[in-house]
Amino acid sequence: MAQKPSIPKGTRDFGPSEMSGRNYIFQTVRSVFRQYGYQCIETPSMENLSTLLGKYGEEGDKLLFRIQNSGEKATLAPEKGLRYDLTVPFARFVVQHQNELSFPFKRYQIQPVWRADRPQKGRYREFCQCDVDVIGSKSLLNELELVQIVDDVFSRMGVRVCIKINNRKILAGLAEVSGQPDKLVDITVAIDKIDKIGLDAVKQELFEKGLTEQAVALIEPVLTLSGTTAEKIGKMRGLLAGSETGLKGLEEVDTLFSLIAGACIGQPVELDLSLARGLNYYTGAIFEVKALDFAIGSICGGGRYDDLTGIFGLPNMSGVGISFGADRIYDVLSGLDLFPHDAAAAARVLFTNMGEKETAYTIPVAASLRARGIACEIYPDNTKLKKQFEYADRKGIPYLAIVGDQEMAAGTVTLKDLATGQQQAVPKDGLADALK
Amino acid sequence: MAQKPSIPKGTRDFGPSEMSGRNYIFQTVRSVFRQYGYQCIETPSMENLSTLLGKYGEEGDKLLFRIQNSGEKATLAPEKGLRYDLTVPFARFVVQHQNELSFPFKRYQIQPVWRADRPQKGRYREFCQCDVDVIGSKSLLNELELVQIVDDVFSRMGVRVCIKINNRKILAGLAEVSGQPDKLVDITVAIDKIDKIGLDAVKQELFEKGLTEQAVALIEPVLTLSGTTAEKIGKMRGLLAGSETGLKGLEEVDTLFSLIAGACIGQPVELDLSLARGLNYYTGAIFEVKALDFAIGSICGGGRYDDLTGIFGLPNMSGVGISFGADRIYDVLSGLDLFPHDAAAAARVLFTNMGEKETAYTIPVAASLRARGIACEIYPDNTKLKKQFEYADRKGIPYLAIVGDQEMAAGTVTLKDLATGQQQAVPKDGLADALK
Repeated sequence: MAQKPSIPKGTRDFGPSEMSGRNYIFQTVRSVFRQYGYQCIETPSMENLSTLLGKYGEEGDKLLFRIQNSGEKATLAPEKGLRYDLTVPFARFVVQHQNELSFPFKRYQIQPVWRADRPQKGRYREFCQCDVDVIGSKSLLNELELVQIVDDVFSRMGVRVCIKINNRKILAGLAEVSGQPDKLVDITVAIDKIDKIGLDAVKQELFEKGLTEQAVALIEPVLTLSGTTAEKIGKMRGLLAGSETGLKGLEEVDTLFSLIAGACIGQPVELDLSLARGLNYYTGAIFEVKALDFAIGSICGGGRYDDLTGIFGLPNMSGVGISFGADRIYDVLSGLDLFPHDAAAAARVLFTNMGEKETAYTIPVAASLRARGIACEIYPDNTKLKKQFEYADRKGIPYLAIVGDQEMAAGTVTLKDLATGQQQAVPKDGLADALK
Repeated sequence: MAQKPSIPKGTRDFGPSEMSGRNYIFQTVRSVFRQYGYQCIETPSMENLSTLLGKYGEEGDKLLFRIQNSGEKATLAPEKGLRYDLTVPFARFVVQHQNELSFPFKRYQIQPVWRADRPQKGRYREFCQCDVDVIGSKSLLNELELVQIVDDVFSRMGVRVCIKINNRKILAGLAEVSGQPDKLVDITVAIDKIDKIGLDAVKQELFEKGLTEQAVALIEPVLTLSGTTAEKIGKMRGLLAGSETGLKGLEEVDTLFSLIAGACIGQPVELDLSLARGLNYYTGAIFEVKALDFAIGSICGGGRYDDLTGIFGLPNMSGVGISFGADRIYDVLSGLDLFPHDAAAAARVLFTNMGEKETAYTIPVAASLRARGIACEIYPDNTKLKKQFEYADRKGIPYLAIVGDQEMAAGTVTLKDLATGQQQAVPKDGLADALK
C-alpha cells in the first residue's frame, strides 16, 4: 500500500511559478548587494549547539531544531542544531576566519534558517533570509550605504516603501533622563509593539514593568512626535540635554540624515522615534522598511551592533546590517502584481513533435536557437498536436514552431504566436531573428 | 571566557572566493537548464522520516540525519529527517502536486543534501546537488537532451569531458544469457567498481557472489570490448540474441547514438558497457561524465528510472535525469584554472576616503556609476591611504578613484590602475565611460 506523501508542518514546497518569483527577488537583492562591493559567503546549515545556545534568549533556545547525533552517540544529548538566523553564524565566521578576511568586511548571505515556532499564517519553520552586513567600521557611511541599498532594491522592484530610522542611543538616553536607565530593555520591548497594540497598551506595559508615572509621561510625547526631521531632532535635543548617550544618538541621526539628503535617495526616509526593534544587540542606528501600498509588517530591518563578535573572542568589532524578508517581499510583489511577466516562462518556443523524421530536422534548429541564447523545447513524444498545444499553453510558452512534411520540404518552420493565433512560415535559419 | 568558535565536522564555511566560484557553477548549470525549458523547484530541507526511510537501503537509513521533535514530543522518536538526496523528494513532490503539474514535467533543483557519512577528504556531511530531470515521457529525445545539457555545461566552462553511456537493460540481458538473471544487482554492483579495483578484483567479486565460471567467462569480454559504437553494438547483438530485454537495451542505445550523431555534440560520447552505477532504480540509459584533463571520479551522472513515484502511489511515470556534482566540478575548474578571473572581484573601483567634504563629493559620483551598472565602493573610514590601497588590493578591486582638494576644485577624480600603476585625471561625469 503506497503511502500518501506529505511534508512536515511549517515547511513548504516551491513549484516553478513560486520559484521564478523567489529567484527574481534573490537575483535583485544579490545584484544590488554586488553593486556596493558586498561579497557572498555561506555557512553550514548545522552549527554546534554551543555556538547557538544563549544567543537568542531563553525562548530562542527552545526554538532551535536539534539534530540527533549519529552512530554510537545517538542516545547522548544532541551536539548540533540548525541555524536560527544568519547573524550569529556570521559573527562566528568572522572570528574563525579573521586572519583571512580584509576589514571592513562586507558580506551578503542568502540562506534558509529554521525555527521550531508554532506554524501559523505567514510564519514558517523554514524560511530564507537575505542579510547584508559590514563589520569592522564605525563610519556612518555604512548606514548610508544600507539605506541606498534598500532604496535601490525596492526601486528596481517597483515597490514604494518608507524607510524608518531611529537610534538605540536615543532610546538609552530616554531611559537615562527618565531616571530609570536599567529599564532600557523593557522600554525597547514595550515601544517595539506600538504598531501592533497602540499607545495605551504600550503605556500599560511600561507601568507593569515598573516605570514611574513621571518616566512614562516623559516617554509618551516622544512616541508621537511630529514635524520634520530637523524639528524632531531639535525637540529631542532639549529633552535629552542631560544624557551624553542620548545626545550622541541625536548627532548620529543628524549626520546620517545629512548624508541621505546628499545621496539622491528616491524613497521617503523618516526619523521614527517609536521604532525600537526588540533585538538586544543593537547599539546605534536601527532600520525598518514598510511597503506603502500593501498592508504587511516590516519587509526589511536591521541596525548597528557594537559587539556581536565579543562572545566568540573578538571584541570591539562594530558592524551594521540589514535583512530582507524574502517571504513578505514575495507577498508584496505578488499582491501588487509587480513580478515581471516573462520571469515564469520556461522557454520562448516549443517545437512540435510529429515523428522521427521531423525531430531529426528540428534538433539542429533548436540547437541553433539555444546558441543564440533563446530557450526552447522540443516536445519529446509524438502525440496529438492538441496535447502539445496544451503543454505550451500551461507552461506559458509564447510560440509554437510546427514542423511537418511541408516545412521540411521548404526548409522552413511554421511559427505560431499563441497569444494572437497568427502564424507565418519562417526559413529555419531565420528563426532566431524572427524571435528576437 | 570566550568560546573558541568551530563548526561541526564534515561541514564547511565558504568565503567570498569559494562562493564566487560556486556561484559561477550554479549560474552556468542553471542558465543551461533554462535554455532547455527546465524549471526550478525547491523542497523543504526536512522531510517526514516515513518519506525517506527504506529508499536508500539499510546503509542509507543509518546515514539519515534525524531531527529531534520539539516541545512535548521531544523525548519521542524523531519524525523528521534532513534530505538525503534530491531524487526522493522530487518523486514525493511530483506525486503530491500531480494535479498542478503539466507532464512531461521538466524540473531542475539546486539544494544542499545531508549525509551522516564518516567525513573524509572530498566527502562532506553537507553538500550541494544540481539535479535536472524530466518525468512523464519515455522518449529517448529526453536522453539526448541530457547529453546536450552536459555538453553545453562543460563547453561553457571550458572543461573537456568524456560522456559515457550504457543501458541497464543490456546488463539485465547479460545476467539473463549468463543463466543467472537473479544476480543482476550483484553483477551491477561488482562491475560498477571496475575503475577503482580493476578487472581481476571484479571477477573475484562475481565468483564470491555465486556466479558460475561460465557466466563470468561470458561477462568478462563485454567489460573490455573495444571498437566503434556500431561495432560494439554488433558484437553484443550476437551475444544477447537470446534476451529480449538485452536486445531492447541495444536498440535504445543504437537510437540514442543516432540522435547524438545528428545533434552536433562537441564533447566525445562513448558507449561503455562496463558502466553500471550502483543505484537500483535505474531501468534504461545510464550516464557518467569524466573530466579528461583532471584526475577525479565522475563529475556528473544519472539515468532513466521507470517507477520512482510508484512507492508514493503514482505508478508508470517514467523519468530520466542527471546530477551535477558541484564540489568535484569546483575542484576541476580550480585545478585547471578555468574560473573566470573577474568573477571574484567585489567591485571595479574603490573611492578613497580623505574626509567628510571629499565623501560628500564622492557619494553622487559613486551612485552615478552604479546607475550605469558599475559596481563600486567608497572606503568608509578616513584612514591612511596606504590602508585603503591595501584594502583594494586584497579584495582584487582593479581601480582606485582618488578624491582630494585638487580633484574637487577641478571637478575630476584621479583614476589609478592598480595593475599598471598608471593614473589619469578624469572628469567626474566621464568616469563611467573611462571604466567601460
